[in-house]
Amino acid sequence: MKRLLLWLAAAFVPAAIGAAFPAPDYYADLRKPSWAPPPWLFGPVWSVLYAMIGVAAWLVSRRGGSGTGKALGLWGGQLALNAAWTPIFFGLRAPGPALVEIAVLWVAVVVTTVAFFARRTAAGALMLPYLAWVTFATALNFEIWRLNR
Amino acid sequence: MKRLLLWLAAAFVPAAIGAAFPAPDYYADLRKPSWAPPPWLFGPVWSVLYAMIGVAAWLVSRRGGSGTGKALGLWGGQLALNAAWTPIFFGLRAPGPALVEIAVLWVAVVVTTVAFFARRTAAGALMLPYLAWVTFATALNFEIWRLNR
Repeated sequence: MKRLLLWLAAAFVPAAIGAAFPAPDYYADLRKPSWAPPPWLFGPVWSVLYAMIGVAAWLVSRRGGSGTGKALGLWGGQLALNAAWTPIFFGLRAPGPALVEIAVLWVAVVVTTVAFFARRTAAGALMLPYLAWVTFATALNFEIWRLNR
Repeated sequence: MKRLLLWLAAAFVPAAIGAAFPAPDYYADLRKPSWAPPPWLFGPVWSVLYAMIGVAAWLVSRRGGSGTGKALGLWGGQLALNAAWTPIFFGLRAPGPALVEIAVLWVAVVVTTVAFFARRTAAGALMLPYLAWVTFATALNFEIWRLNR
């Protein structure tokens, strides 16, 4: 259980980094598609998703076996990419570079999800809502980039 | 967003306390009903639920208005009751007192959920899976108490 808490803490690192780049006025002033969610929704959704992917990593780590390190390395890589998005989008206020970055993140999440499914079905399943949300966030980033060029 | 992280951190306090009372051998040796979940499932489920109720408290806190302090006080009270269960069940190895304690927790969660629904529908909805799980955990505690008297 202590290890589970450590994985959860790791999963929330992007949230802690993201909290250092508050830019509500910048986001409010951007042109957004009609289907953009209300700003308050992002924090709650990410919170639950971070908990889910933290649990997923813990499930993979406790199963062990060959390839575990590689799968968890992928997980750490996608998490680092996730953590980098907010500093780019909100810190640099650069939706274009952020779009490139989140596209790379999307690929990393797909690869990680596949690797997790191969090791433990429950771990892969716990990645799916996260993958769905990153897909949605990528589409939203694309539209914001397009509307504010 | 920083406040959201603080609410999440608060919500995970019971998890941190619970991690201080590891007793896998004790749990393995208890007689359990056939429908008892595998032991590894509890950590993942609680993790996601703690994230959800942390988000719920944040949603109530940011809405503000009269009665907010009372609703959040209820939330803190049910969280304290939640945190106390593991030391009783696993620390004292006392399923009977733990059953009494979780019954009180169940009532506190119902009251908190109602108070959250009254303030913000999304916050109340985020409490429902937690309420369902505490209900299930209460039934499981009852059966374990009954089978091991």
